[in-house]
Amino acid sequence: MGIRTAVAGASGYAGGELLRILAGHPEFEIGALTAGTNAGTELGAHQPHLRPLAGRVLAETTPDTLAGHDVVFLALPHGQSGPLAAELGDDVLVIDCGADHRLTDPAAWEKFYGTPHAGSWPYGLPELPGHREPLRGAKRVAVPGCYPTAVSLALFPALAAGLAEPDAVVVAASGTSGAGRSLKPHLLGSEVMGSVSAYAVGGSHRHTPEMVQNLSAAAGEPVTVSFTPTLAPMSRGILATCTAKARPGATAGALRAAYADAYAAEPFLGLLPDGRWPATSMTLGANTVLVQVALDEAADRVVAVAAVDNLTKGTAGGAVQCANLALGLPEELGLTTIGVSP
Amino acid sequence: MGIRTAVAGASGYAGGELLRILAGHPEFEIGALTAGTNAGTELGAHQPHLRPLAGRVLAETTPDTLAGHDVVFLALPHGQSGPLAAELGDDVLVIDCGADHRLTDPAAWEKFYGTPHAGSWPYGLPELPGHREPLRGAKRVAVPGCYPTAVSLALFPALAAGLAEPDAVVVAASGTSGAGRSLKPHLLGSEVMGSVSAYAVGGSHRHTPEMVQNLSAAAGEPVTVSFTPTLAPMSRGILATCTAKARPGATAGALRAAYADAYAAEPFLGLLPDGRWPATSMTLGANTVLVQVALDEAADRVVAVAAVDNLTKGTAGGAVQCANLALGLPEELGLTTIGVSP
Amino acid sequence: MGIRTAVAGASGYAGGELLRILAGHPEFEIGALTAGTNAGTELGAHQPHLRPLAGRVLAETTPDTLAGHDVVFLALPHGQSGPLAAELGDDVLVIDCGADHRLTDPAAWEKFYGTPHAGSWPYGLPELPGHREPLRGAKRVAVPGCYPTAVSLALFPALAAGLAEPDAVVVAASGTSGAGRSLKPHLLGSEVMGSVSAYAVGGSHRHTPEMVQNLSAAAGEPVTVSFTPTLAPMSRGILATCTAKARPGATAGALRAAYADAYAAEPFLGLLPDGRWPATSMTLGANTVLVQVALDEAADRVVAVAAVDNLTKGTAGGAVQCANLALGLPEELGLTTIGVSP
Amino acid sequence: MGIRTAVAGASGYAGGELLRILAGHPEFEIGALTAGTNAGTELGAHQPHLRPLAGRVLAETTPDTLAGHDVVFLALPHGQSGPLAAELGDDVLVIDCGADHRLTDPAAWEKFYGTPHAGSWPYGLPELPGHREPLRGAKRVAVPGCYPTAVSLALFPALAAGLAEPDAVVVAASGTSGAGRSLKPHLLGSEVMGSVSAYAVGGSHRHTPEMVQNLSAAAGEPVTVSFTPTLAPMSRGILATCTAKARPGATAGALRAAYADAYAAEPFLGLLPDGRWPATSMTLGANTVLVQVALDEAADRVVAVAAVDNLTKGTAGGAVQCANLALGLPEELGLTTIGVSP
Repeated sequence: MGIRTAVAGASGYAGGELLRILAGHPEFEIGALTAGTNAGTELGAHQPHLRPLAGRVLAETTPDTLAGHDVVFLALPHGQSGPLAAELGDDVLVIDCGADHRLTDPAAWEKFYGTPHAGSWPYGLPELPGHREPLRGAKRVAVPGCYPTAVSLALFPALAAGLAEPDAVVVAASGTSGAGRSLKPHLLGSEVMGSVSAYAVGGSHRHTPEMVQNLSAAAGEPVTVSFTPTLAPMSRGILATCTAKARPGATAGALRAAYADAYAAEPFLGLLPDGRWPATSMTLGANTVLVQVALDEAADRVVAVAAVDNLTKGTAGGAVQCANLALGLPEELGLTTIGVSP
Repeated sequence: MGIRTAVAGASGYAGGELLRILAGHPEFEIGALTAGTNAGTELGAHQPHLRPLAGRVLAETTPDTLAGHDVVFLALPHGQSGPLAAELGDDVLVIDCGADHRLTDPAAWEKFYGTPHAGSWPYGLPELPGHREPLRGAKRVAVPGCYPTAVSLALFPALAAGLAEPDAVVVAASGTSGAGRSLKPHLLGSEVMGSVSAYAVGGSHRHTPEMVQNLSAAAGEPVTVSFTPTLAPMSRGILATCTAKARPGATAGALRAAYADAYAAEPFLGLLPDGRWPATSMTLGANTVLVQVALDEAADRVVAVAAVDNLTKGTAGGAVQCANLALGLPEELGLTTIGVSP
Repeated sequence: MGIRTAVAGASGYAGGELLRILAGHPEFEIGALTAGTNAGTELGAHQPHLRPLAGRVLAETTPDTLAGHDVVFLALPHGQSGPLAAELGDDVLVIDCGADHRLTDPAAWEKFYGTPHAGSWPYGLPELPGHREPLRGAKRVAVPGCYPTAVSLALFPALAAGLAEPDAVVVAASGTSGAGRSLKPHLLGSEVMGSVSAYAVGGSHRHTPEMVQNLSAAAGEPVTVSFTPTLAPMSRGILATCTAKARPGATAGALRAAYADAYAAEPFLGLLPDGRWPATSMTLGANTVLVQVALDEAADRVVAVAAVDNLTKGTAGGAVQCANLALGLPEELGLTTIGVSP
Repeated sequence: MGIRTAVAGASGYAGGELLRILAGHPEFEIGALTAGTNAGTELGAHQPHLRPLAGRVLAETTPDTLAGHDVVFLALPHGQSGPLAAELGDDVLVIDCGADHRLTDPAAWEKFYGTPHAGSWPYGLPELPGHREPLRGAKRVAVPGCYPTAVSLALFPALAAGLAEPDAVVVAASGTSGAGRSLKPHLLGSEVMGSVSAYAVGGSHRHTPEMVQNLSAAAGEPVTVSFTPTLAPMSRGILATCTAKARPGATAGALRAAYADAYAAEPFLGLLPDGRWPATSMTLGANTVLVQVALDEAADRVVAVAAVDNLTKGTAGGAVQCANLALGLPEELGLTTIGVSP
């Protein structure tokens, strides 16, 4: 019998991607599926692509409906997982895809979210130095945000190797699924197709302090991040362009070596061959982050570009990878490094 | 050790999708990858989403490079698989994703393709009545065209049940990958984005005789098909709207029953619940055809709409399904009914 | 001083397109702009592309705010223009872009809309035989629906010339702006991008009786229409594929001659040269309908395909064309036949 | 009689946009249309959206076919306009949309283009300080590149006002039409739809020295630019995110005032109201650049974001604006500030 698994927020985009991956995973058995306003309806009304589960009826998201499972994945709006997780047993593995338990600094949380901090959990980005071990056997995991996944993995090798100044400029393009299934005018197809737009400019995006936290740890010194997100006319994918001033010694060769070393043992990180640059289509539905790095000699800057599927490695795939680690399963189980393309 | 498998045309879209599926299949072992003008280059230069295979070098497509495999998948331009297959041993399973061996009527082939007919092979659409058994143990399989897959599976239940006249009107929208990786101006992103266009209007599309062949067999009488293909601004997917005059007795209930019966035992065919209509996104990367049917009482017509991923069930997934049958493996092995969405 | 013009529904897509065209028209002077829930906000918050009008504040849509203008364009949800127009003076030219006054048959209205019929007005498709004269000097004009514009203009020449049976099958792909700025889940960018879907299948779309009305008048006998609309991943544009059984004498040459004759004097209708087929991108932002016609000999059907910008010739451009006629201005004034492409 | 105008490169995207604008301009009369490999074919085969010109036959691009016009617009691949222009009379106004005459520094040209420098012409970005006067009455104009148009206009106010350090980081997303109608695999619709990708990373894009030239002039000191272009799934539009370290005194208010001042008299530059951010859809087909600016206090950086239609203000609209200036016509003649949206 499989590992009994519940998904809270099953009618949303992150919940749907969790179910897509869990349905193909050899160890998980899908139990309760819960939702907020969609409770009482069939999953197929919201996730028609999940054919084998289409007839499952969504329960309400409560501690009771989530009880009796070995693993609970939470794919809820920020602010909801804190109180809910507190009601789930300590012996249950809780994987939170929301933001509530990512930040270690309560002040950063309160500044960007405006509510009391729920406390931090082991951070689910095992590829970052020092983050894999705490995830083994963990009972609580905070899955990283999609942008921080791309940006942290794109920049940490340069910073950890001392090849870049701790002052990063990041501009990232995201598909619209990153905003969830929210009924907002600017997310309508008529608005997004044929258009790229900027939002949350000037450092106000809530993923910024998470990037600062990760990159500062990697650099061993405080890192500043200027982050500008943009919305691109595609459903999935993030392309993050990350630059920082080069430090002495940051030759093209030294950079390439630093990335090759940092990624060598990582099944889900790929350094592209020289001369090829990431496209989000390379990662669609895959649990990979593909990166390329260059030295801009005239501007004296390191430029690292990363592509990731925001819903897979950027959310649900990363979540399953962490669940694998927490449960003592092979880290790659049920996850693919092959994208769907074209 | 796995079933040794070669893919000819590995740098194209159909070849790439074959490799995506084969790489996740538990029984196939990927052997030679061959190409035409791309021979000598790395697969990763053309299929960067196939990370684990990226470093494989493409051989030239010849009988020699394809020799020594248990299965050879041909994903070549029409006209090329006929002569090539003739040079492959009779004991090798050859799965042809091209058009060369689909049509049973040499006159139809010659009219639409203008070259001598290469002969017909067992036709790889096991869901059509009478087509599964000949595929078991077969050594040669002709994989259906993407449009005929959608249209044949959408209409055969109504025709076989005598609920529709044998005179169909089909309008289908296809993603651009159906045209392959051809460098033609009208396939440039700048041209296709934001635009739907018609082509091959008036019965000239080469998939038309294949639809006629399949639907006539299902109906037990000659069927006429007026087929208009259109190009839609998406990479993958076909949505086929198929209508025919209703025959006496074609109530909404009778239609639904006919489709429910025809699809009941088919793992890859889905009749949607009442009130839901197919979208190509429901099938992305999945080996499914999703169908809904209605009776238009005022126009006295049956309207069946099918969604399919042209590269998966419409080509490469269907090919692997046939290979499973031919090799005596479970028909569903290595294939998913879950799409990647949104 | 210009013709004083009000636009009701200025924050919607049809309203925005009206303003785009009116702003470039030499005779109209833009007066009151009104809205429903968006009353009190700046136009620029909803229509940032209308730079010169961005600071205009939206009034509430009432008879009072619309009073004092020479022309009032109504771009309102169906059911709202009937009561409102009744309160506007008889001397004011009222151009209704909504459905309320299009259908001449109250029974058809009530069947498809479920409310009492508001009565019919001169129908604003001057290219249809007999429709131009009643528009000259009219004080009330019902602008056609976007789908009926494309379909009626694509099929009337064949029907009027007796070259096609009065039993049409129409499948049309529309961009998402046809659904307006409605906050519905299936209109989110994440859902529509990369996907074509069917809706209102089986004859339930409200534009169906309008097509029947137009085509029956053109044919001089009752015409049946099987209409299936689909949603395509683009903001604008309709591609309508329209077929009907050929009647004796319907040679390719006779068809081409019938269309050439019917369109010869029409500035906004274009019959494409032999061998070219319509794409919606050819009409973006233009007040044109581009059509091609073929005879499918094997299926014995006439196939006419039309491309139109649903917001321009399909709504707002057609509305301004009618206003020109009603006011005695040159019919083409302020309208372009050149699209924005690529 | 109008100003007799020729367009060289009429079958390309820039040529098509020139013709779209010229056809609506009250003073220009369209004369010779020329092309390279497409010479001898009808314009309508390449630019079907330009209905009234569809039957015009393309001549070969030679000094002879271009002779006898008052104005010649060159929309040619880089390297071709230099030798051609040398053969056109000194009394003819030549507007070069290509790169050949933009750079004042021969070394920069040779480094990025690898050929001898053709010399520099008056630079056609009248909104940059000091650039409008030299364009009045000019006989030769070098139209800026699309990226430099966006980036230069986005950043010059901050640099000219001394509010930003002369070391910029720019990441820009462009639609595919920026690459022209080139038959390259990565520009196929199947590749670009659903994907954002990076290219020319590390300072190698040929528009980089043009940005350096413009921004250094505006700042009055050498400016460094780290430029990363990305390709977005849309046909048109550039969104440029431009940042630089803030200098002392760079408060949000000081920044806003600097931009408001710099743009106040400019008809084609728009500073968006507080809280609104540019989207490329706001500028589609319009001759505008829309900009917003913010101070990121935590990162101590100025962030300016600009949206532009790469083919309109970014190429052909800018070219006509310069022609207006050179000919003594009103600068805004024949150009619109209203986009086509949604």
